[in-house]
Amino acid sequence: MQRYKTQIEKELKSFFSEKKKESKDFSDEIYEAIKSLEDFTMRGGKRIRALLMIVGYKSAGGKKLQEMIKASIAAELVHSFLLIHDDIIDDDDLRRNGPTIHKSFQKRYGKKGSSDLAMITGDICLCYGLEPIMDSRFMADNKLKAINKLGKIIKHTCYGEFIDVTSVKNNVSVDDIQKIHEYKTAKYTISGPLQVGGMLAGANNKLLQDFEKYGLYLGLAFQLKDDILGIFGDEERVGKPIGSDIVEGKKTMLVLKANSKYVNSLLGKKMTNRQLEKAREIIRNSGSLDYSEKLISDLVIKAKNALHDSKMPRNEKEFLKFLADYVNTRKL
Amino acid sequence: MQRYKTQIEKELKSFFSEKKKESKDFSDEIYEAIKSLEDFTMRGGKRIRALLMIVGYKSAGGKKLQEMIKASIAAELVHSFLLIHDDIIDDDDLRRNGPTIHKSFQKRYGKKGSSDLAMITGDICLCYGLEPIMDSRFMADNKLKAINKLGKIIKHTCYGEFIDVTSVKNNVSVDDIQKIHEYKTAKYTISGPLQVGGMLAGANNKLLQDFEKYGLYLGLAFQLKDDILGIFGDEERVGKPIGSDIVEGKKTMLVLKANSKYVNSLLGKKMTNRQLEKAREIIRNSGSLDYSEKLISDLVIKAKNALHDSKMPRNEKEFLKFLADYVNTRKL
Repeated sequence: MQRYKTQIEKELKSFFSEKKKESKDFSDEIYEAIKSLEDFTMRGGKRIRALLMIVGYKSAGGKKLQEMIKASIAAELVHSFLLIHDDIIDDDDLRRNGPTIHKSFQKRYGKKGSSDLAMITGDICLCYGLEPIMDSRFMADNKLKAINKLGKIIKHTCYGEFIDVTSVKNNVSVDDIQKIHEYKTAKYTISGPLQVGGMLAGANNKLLQDFEKYGLYLGLAFQLKDDILGIFGDEERVGKPIGSDIVEGKKTMLVLKANSKYVNSLLGKKMTNRQLEKAREIIRNSGSLDYSEKLISDLVIKAKNALHDSKMPRNEKEFLKFLADYVNTRKL
Repeated sequence: MQRYKTQIEKELKSFFSEKKKESKDFSDEIYEAIKSLEDFTMRGGKRIRALLMIVGYKSAGGKKLQEMIKASIAAELVHSFLLIHDDIIDDDDLRRNGPTIHKSFQKRYGKKGSSDLAMITGDICLCYGLEPIMDSRFMADNKLKAINKLGKIIKHTCYGEFIDVTSVKNNVSVDDIQKIHEYKTAKYTISGPLQVGGMLAGANNKLLQDFEKYGLYLGLAFQLKDDILGIFGDEERVGKPIGSDIVEGKKTMLVLKANSKYVNSLLGKKMTNRQLEKAREIIRNSGSLDYSEKLISDLVIKAKNALHDSKMPRNEKEFLKFLADYVNTRKL
């Protein structure tokens, strides 16, 4: 899979050179913004979404691999768009071991200007995300289905983001959290890319439904794991400040199941290392960490079972099963 | 054309009922956001962009009028998206004689929360804007071209918005202003809708190029007229505070050509009625108002000439010529 990652990044590089070239004589400001966007996107590590688009395509019998690798960067561009807007909302300085987009604009344009310009840069990046599929040489009907799906994925992710932001204010239940994870993460990280890729090869409905189930379970597991790493992980590897969910007042499953007055009292405020250490202890001792870890294991099993009778090449099925196990064991 | 306006609004209403129905059991917060978005969109007056999509379609010989009216609301939804993000940037309270989206969220979610949620609502509205074309029953190839064009229009409008925001900081020339108008207004208000509509009927390149020229000239005229109304117009009719361009520090053609220390000193600050009155006087006496008005007249003539040898039905050509004259004489 390392080979694909290299090729995906080559395609991203060439996409951004094209955009920079187009804008060079047109506007210095936009040229600089595209450069920031390129830096931000190229720092993104695993390329899991682009990879899943390719796997979805191959699973459905697609054979134009080079064409598909080109189109797959759509998923990474849409990912950048979502991260940029998410970082504005959370007012995060750090992402992928570097400055967030709005942070990178701050010196030049001040606080308000930089968040405005980051919002527009995100919008531009969303539009960029449609182009690799538009420009690909697949059948018109398949491209239309794929773009349609991509639009719906983005919409649903925004729905999830909306519920997530308002959940800070409202009381949230376990159901709410699952809904946020399903909409904000599962669709656009796992099932969405698989389905969009599958559609470009004309996948049948059964396979698309299997992807939906697999992606739902694995996406939930992925987000729960993310929440654990966000509190118990290593800042360097995770690429953003540890404990930031608590600082932002997010009620993750870990916080909800810890059901601790102390941890709840930390939500939405700055935290000392000592307070973070104590929160970790409570989350561990209350059984909340075990609960999330058990849930992740169950979800990973369900995800693998969802593919049990899917008709797809052996290699792709093995990869998706491997990925499910990886989500469980990953350290970043 | 009044008949089309009524039908466009009926289609918008039914689009939003559908979205509200889908979200009702899913999330109260999103239901409320869609309601705000509906109010905001339904207050928008002239439906000029949807109308131009229909005119573009008919100009290219399209016959499925009902289908086209349904698809045309795409332009109004994209328009709402752009306004929502623009209002966040300008921190405007008022739009279309009612609250802006972020303002309407403010009571419930505070200042930061409301601008975050308005940003997401704008993103959702962009995705909504793709759906009416996706869901239409035109030929796949034509739909693909139209969606591709729509994505490029949005991207270019965002480029224009980016240059506009950074221009407050930089020194701008007449060329810069024209570039901003071309990208921020002309493409998505005039040529874009005409071309997207035309593409849905399989328009040939000559017609699409004529639309491009017509739209460029008329869009520039439209924006210059907008700038004049924004300083000399009537608040009730214009639907937003008079003088807000100056308060926001925007260097419009009127301000640039007035070349007045006094007017420049007002840029970016709150203004009293007396100061606005004096700024108007200077803009009038310096000849800057005359300059913009002469430019508008010239552009309107160029726009009409651009259609001179276009092959399209007589009615549509007459309408586009009438519209060009209307831009010159409009009061709101």
